[in-house]
Amino acid sequence: MMLEHEIKIPASTANSYPIRIATDILGSLRARIEADFAGYNKFVVTDENLVSAGHLQKLLGQRDVPTFIISPAGETSKNIDTAISIIEAMEKAYLGRDTLVVALGGGTVGDIAGFAAAVFKRGVPVLQIPTTTVAQADSAVGGKTGVDSILSKNAFGAFWHPVAVYIDVATLTTLEDRQFRAGLVESVKHAIIADSEYFDFLEGNLDAVLERKPEMLEKVAHWNCKIKGNVVEADPGEQNLRRILNYGHTIGHAVEAASGFELLHGEAVAIGIIAAGLIEIELGLSQPGRLDRTRGILEKLGVPVRLPRDLAQKDLIDLIKRDKKAVNKSPRFVLISEMGQVYCKDGQYAVEVAPDLVEKILDKL
Amino acid sequence: MMLEHEIKIPASTANSYPIRIATDILGSLRARIEADFAGYNKFVVTDENLVSAGHLQKLLGQRDVPTFIISPAGETSKNIDTAISIIEAMEKAYLGRDTLVVALGGGTVGDIAGFAAAVFKRGVPVLQIPTTTVAQADSAVGGKTGVDSILSKNAFGAFWHPVAVYIDVATLTTLEDRQFRAGLVESVKHAIIADSEYFDFLEGNLDAVLERKPEMLEKVAHWNCKIKGNVVEADPGEQNLRRILNYGHTIGHAVEAASGFELLHGEAVAIGIIAAGLIEIELGLSQPGRLDRTRGILEKLGVPVRLPRDLAQKDLIDLIKRDKKAVNKSPRFVLISEMGQVYCKDGQYAVEVAPDLVEKILDKL
Repeated sequence: MMLEHEIKIPASTANSYPIRIATDILGSLRARIEADFAGYNKFVVTDENLVSAGHLQKLLGQRDVPTFIISPAGETSKNIDTAISIIEAMEKAYLGRDTLVVALGGGTVGDIAGFAAAVFKRGVPVLQIPTTTVAQADSAVGGKTGVDSILSKNAFGAFWHPVAVYIDVATLTTLEDRQFRAGLVESVKHAIIADSEYFDFLEGNLDAVLERKPEMLEKVAHWNCKIKGNVVEADPGEQNLRRILNYGHTIGHAVEAASGFELLHGEAVAIGIIAAGLIEIELGLSQPGRLDRTRGILEKLGVPVRLPRDLAQKDLIDLIKRDKKAVNKSPRFVLISEMGQVYCKDGQYAVEVAPDLVEKILDKL
Repeated sequence: MMLEHEIKIPASTANSYPIRIATDILGSLRARIEADFAGYNKFVVTDENLVSAGHLQKLLGQRDVPTFIISPAGETSKNIDTAISIIEAMEKAYLGRDTLVVALGGGTVGDIAGFAAAVFKRGVPVLQIPTTTVAQADSAVGGKTGVDSILSKNAFGAFWHPVAVYIDVATLTTLEDRQFRAGLVESVKHAIIADSEYFDFLEGNLDAVLERKPEMLEKVAHWNCKIKGNVVEADPGEQNLRRILNYGHTIGHAVEAASGFELLHGEAVAIGIIAAGLIEIELGLSQPGRLDRTRGILEKLGVPVRLPRDLAQKDLIDLIKRDKKAVNKSPRFVLISEMGQVYCKDGQYAVEVAPDLVEKILDKL
């Protein structure tokens, strides 16, 4: 006899969260967070760079809030061990499910803190305060969180949407130049996949952006949030459309890992964007001059547009196979058919590319 | 200037999963899973007890499926390190998001495998095949997953519903007697909180259940799934009603940890159920003879109904404060007002109990 019982999981209701963009608001955020999340204990996650730049001090003022400071700052700390240390710190502070995690920092801080919030006692809310060009353009919006295993990036992760995102572009003024420039690669990516007008804007105003003029930085942040927000709203769980945000990332992630993280994420993605452009030419998806425009803006940003000479191609191929987007071990790429327009094949935005062609492109890079 | 943008997270649609209960179906499950989840690579998580009982062999037959065998079996392996090892094993097998995790085992296996599935590359589906009385009654149904930190139970976790649950009560025939009996405590708990008829049934048929007669075991499993299923459907994220499933668990979890896991989960919960009964008497929520009936059925099961002499009460109090249900560090308890009927105060099913009263009850236990 087979007894059967059906468990129904009710639909979750629609939800939303605000992104607020302004200049020099860190000092006033504390009161706002206290008012908006009165019933919650607060737990801040940040890194040593934010401390030495004075941003943590600005956010907390005189208040004593339990805080975890990631050290060293950067990608090398974005691993499961750091996430475990954060969870243990929260336990030692006797924090319960009525806790709001506040992530103050770049993409690394946001990813780790978001993941820790997603799994702490089966999930507590997280509020993101991104402080780098890459985090403000990309990682703070959209609910992707993750940390690395010893084998690959974001092997551990969760989709965990923030309850709010606060962008203070004044935090960008203390960012070191290389980080600042590399982070803008995600903005270029947004323009390439979604909005040729935004690409024109970046081409025409890159000097003012690089001078970090607040009104320019606010505009860039706003444009990024709109583009990313539209994609995330349409496909929050990355079933299909959301994959377009991975433009340049199939090879970008592999290059980043193969460089032993000598290359910043944005720098590796820049190389991945050029690789995508070369594949587009091979597949007849390009127009004359299009890749030159892309290369021109990336060169002006001062990010690499060629593979570093010392990267082992065998490692790259292996890493590309491990990519989350891979299906049946065949790498998949997001490609564009024209500026601002992603190529869609059989309803799919991430298309398989023959391994032979990938190797040929790597030779050309 | 404050620029604002709103991100909308669309409602997720209602979902459901089947629970199928039968005797001696392990050998035929393989074909069924292959048919129902044809597009997925399979990855099995089990433990060494299931291997030595022959159940893994029965499930896999001649097929070669990547498998992680948890060793040693049991609570001591239910920690973040084991979850990390599973994730790394999945990476080494080049598995991607098109992977179905199949959890074959007791509550420990289900919790660990479910958590690993929830966080592997931001989440892959899990299918549960519970093989113990506690897992079939409780942990395999409802989507709670979790692993322990060095400080507390389920410090890491996620709500991650299975895509299907298959219960083969024949797997219970190889379960050692102490495990078998302790697992039935969750069945007694279900009866106490939700269904006095089920309590009558258990009282009247406990001998046949303890003899492991298949039709009795199927009936018990079915009753448990119905009760747990109804609660989970009404409150999948444990906002309120679902807390009733924690009856006996506030003190139960603490006793389990304070015993250094010498006591099995069900044995510790039995003591917690008696503690809840004593609190009910103190608060005027009991009827004459009610606690005696509960004590009677637990004694017949052969599980402890008193605190072990060597438990340090100070440790217990500290552990109770760390409990996930605690708010403002004040412990909360689920209590009943009559058999099958949970006590509800101001719309809340988990009510604060004065720490003084808790200490007094611990003295009596």
